[in-house]
Amino acid sequence: MLRAILLTLLTFGLTATSFGQEWKFLVEGDDLSEWERLGGEATYTASNGEVIGTTVANTPNTFLATKRPYGDFALNLEVRVDPAINSGIQIRSESKPDYLNGRVHGYQVEIDPSARAWSGGIYDEARRGWLYPLSANEDCRVAFNPNGWNHYYIEAIGPSIRTWVNDVACAALYDDMTASGFIALQVHSVPGEDLANRNVRWRNIRVWEENVTPREWTSQYVINLVPNSLSQQEIAQGFSLLFDGKTIQGWRGAGKESFPEKGWRVEDGVLMVESSGGAEAAYGGDIVTVDEYSTFEFSLDFKLTEGANSGIKYFITESYGSDASAIGLEYQLLDDDRHPDATQGAAGNRTLGSLYDLIPADNGKTVREPGQWNRVRIVVTGKRLDERVLGSRMEQSEFSGAHVEHWLNDRKVLEYERGTPVFDALVARSKYVVWEGFGHWPQGHILLQDHGDEVHFRSIKVRRID
Amino acid sequence: MLRAILLTLLTFGLTATSFGQEWKFLVEGDDLSEWERLGGEATYTASNGEVIGTTVANTPNTFLATKRPYGDFALNLEVRVDPAINSGIQIRSESKPDYLNGRVHGYQVEIDPSARAWSGGIYDEARRGWLYPLSANEDCRVAFNPNGWNHYYIEAIGPSIRTWVNDVACAALYDDMTASGFIALQVHSVPGEDLANRNVRWRNIRVWEENVTPREWTSQYVINLVPNSLSQQEIAQGFSLLFDGKTIQGWRGAGKESFPEKGWRVEDGVLMVESSGGAEAAYGGDIVTVDEYSTFEFSLDFKLTEGANSGIKYFITESYGSDASAIGLEYQLLDDDRHPDATQGAAGNRTLGSLYDLIPADNGKTVREPGQWNRVRIVVTGKRLDERVLGSRMEQSEFSGAHVEHWLNDRKVLEYERGTPVFDALVARSKYVVWEGFGHWPQGHILLQDHGDEVHFRSIKVRRID
Repeated sequence: MLRAILLTLLTFGLTATSFGQEWKFLVEGDDLSEWERLGGEATYTASNGEVIGTTVANTPNTFLATKRPYGDFALNLEVRVDPAINSGIQIRSESKPDYLNGRVHGYQVEIDPSARAWSGGIYDEARRGWLYPLSANEDCRVAFNPNGWNHYYIEAIGPSIRTWVNDVACAALYDDMTASGFIALQVHSVPGEDLANRNVRWRNIRVWEENVTPREWTSQYVINLVPNSLSQQEIAQGFSLLFDGKTIQGWRGAGKESFPEKGWRVEDGVLMVESSGGAEAAYGGDIVTVDEYSTFEFSLDFKLTEGANSGIKYFITESYGSDASAIGLEYQLLDDDRHPDATQGAAGNRTLGSLYDLIPADNGKTVREPGQWNRVRIVVTGKRLDERVLGSRMEQSEFSGAHVEHWLNDRKVLEYERGTPVFDALVARSKYVVWEGFGHWPQGHILLQDHGDEVHFRSIKVRRID
Repeated sequence: MLRAILLTLLTFGLTATSFGQEWKFLVEGDDLSEWERLGGEATYTASNGEVIGTTVANTPNTFLATKRPYGDFALNLEVRVDPAINSGIQIRSESKPDYLNGRVHGYQVEIDPSARAWSGGIYDEARRGWLYPLSANEDCRVAFNPNGWNHYYIEAIGPSIRTWVNDVACAALYDDMTASGFIALQVHSVPGEDLANRNVRWRNIRVWEENVTPREWTSQYVINLVPNSLSQQEIAQGFSLLFDGKTIQGWRGAGKESFPEKGWRVEDGVLMVESSGGAEAAYGGDIVTVDEYSTFEFSLDFKLTEGANSGIKYFITESYGSDASAIGLEYQLLDDDRHPDATQGAAGNRTLGSLYDLIPADNGKTVREPGQWNRVRIVVTGKRLDERVLGSRMEQSEFSGAHVEHWLNDRKVLEYERGTPVFDALVARSKYVVWEGFGHWPQGHILLQDHGDEVHFRSIKVRRID
């Protein structure tokens, strides 16, 4: 039903004329009177509604910007770029004397004909860097044609900024830093003369501002930078909050009926495990979700203190007797640079993002230092079907949640298949070898570890995957 | 060019009339006078050229067989079966007083609407059991429609028997046991009354015998039971023999210029490593292929003596200094029941078929005892592309042969990806941890191990994969 309504709204929103409103073209003929050039000295001309930007050597990034700001809007355009040149489309962007001497900054929808192929991602120009890298949405990387015209559709409604390239859903960003600003066409700086006099061309640049209705909700990973919030797209995907900044509903002490009375604290929108000297589950103890999960997506932000150790465990059964932390598969949280456990284990399998003591995370250049927020995402999907031929009969055993991915700051840092011979061989040479059937559990709780060090959590979310 | 010729021949061969020859229908109207019932008491009737078989309780497998034998032929028919019933089409089959009191035996093209879905595989009825199980060709398992009519195309030309179900290439068997025999329609025995009175229906049963030309060569795994031979299909796939039953061309001693003068012997179509007391590479020593391989398919038959230990290693570089066997990835060959190494390592990763000391083979019910021949297949394909974001630049590293599969007796017993974090974690806790960069080699020789025990090899084949 929701889908039907949205489709209706979508059709309405995209119709060129409805209730008198029309898509407004931002360039007509050779008229650039509504635009101004900012930044560098790259050149722009217009002809038949098409803007042609040309690179110039020894000049910084240049922008052809609208003179007026746009807040909520849908922007339609086509772009064709020399395959050797990087470019982008600024939205809700600004140039202010008190910020880097007027340097253009803000959301840039990427135009990237390089092998990286991040066209449609969102970069925060001269501000926070990548907000929606396409490491978060590999499906979009094939959308852009480096040798032809490409259709961009950009939707900005409140904190929701979404992009489509040639009708493939690319970025889904939720961020409230800047609600309005100019639209601008970037001609990127070039490293030398041989990349001068290259063109970027834009045409059919048209915008819709009144009653902008969102396109249908899509399934890609939403990067939500508003703490403890859910975007409409996340809600449509089935997410709910396990921590909204205030309440700890949905959590209890591991092996206990209620939430720990000490050791954990909610403060300023953060769920914090307090420092108690670095011992495992000795003070407040670990906390677990009240519910159990089999196939699911779980995400949170965490901030370490210096030298801190913690972890997110999943498929927790609480059925093993253990004085220390409950047994499960662990997404390791660690200050790799300062905690000695980072160098223990094998091949780096105790570093941040690793499947603890089993599989090392490929977390190079991804980790943000203690004191900064990092984003975790754990995705558990798929079925495993084991087949054995017994004479002419077949024996089959099946379990859900076979495929697991660990993500750190929007990049997949490891993936594995539970219950495979490879997995069992890893377990057999790990500290978990003592636990019979380790990692073959059909479902379990999700756990946040009290390892005696202060660690902050926020924006804790979970959805079941059918 | 070959392809073009074959396509021409194919078109020619399938034309209903050419040079006066026609597809000969084996059942017309209700006439079954060219057929006889063998085996059990299930019933058959014919109507409008369609044969209807009906299950009967408490009777063995029943067959409606042609009275005359067929040697080389193409057989076209359609079949529809009650989804609860197993059935099959016998070809080149026999019923003789001196074999199991006349019991029908021979090649059966499977009709299998069960969840196993092995329709199109080849079972050797009342003789050797499965010859071409669909564990060898998973792509075919989706071809059969359990709830409708299915088109079978069966081609028997000399030792080559191939099947298609609904135009999907299924079995590719090369076997010279029986060159001619009757065609028969099976009604399988049923376990009880509730599966009695179920139907199997066949229609448009037609055969072509003169100048049977093969269909185009297809890419699935060929199971070749003729020792030290290559079928035309294998040749078309690019295979060549590394041992033809007589010569050891293409091999040399590991770390040596020539073939060992002792310890290895060719006899009766077998390449044999001789017993020398169970020590590693101490007598004749290991042998390696002269050539190196990056992406490839390698196969052989091996026969162990009791308690024997040997192995097939690949990506051998010979650059490591070692007094014992050369370093590489090893497909373990072992008499698991009698050699103590089977219980060493972890999680069974030193048993037959395992990636030695790293990944256990799922070899249950697959292994044939010492004194019997087993088939090995090692498939190395794929590329690995590592991507790392460095600022706005991308660093990529690529190597071939990332994906590896170990097969034993036509079943995949393990697979893994070289160079992944999972792989590196396994190596870091194995005996190979001392070898820098273990398993990341771009190419290498293939090695047969002299572990001081008598082991027989034959039908050694290799092809490069582009």
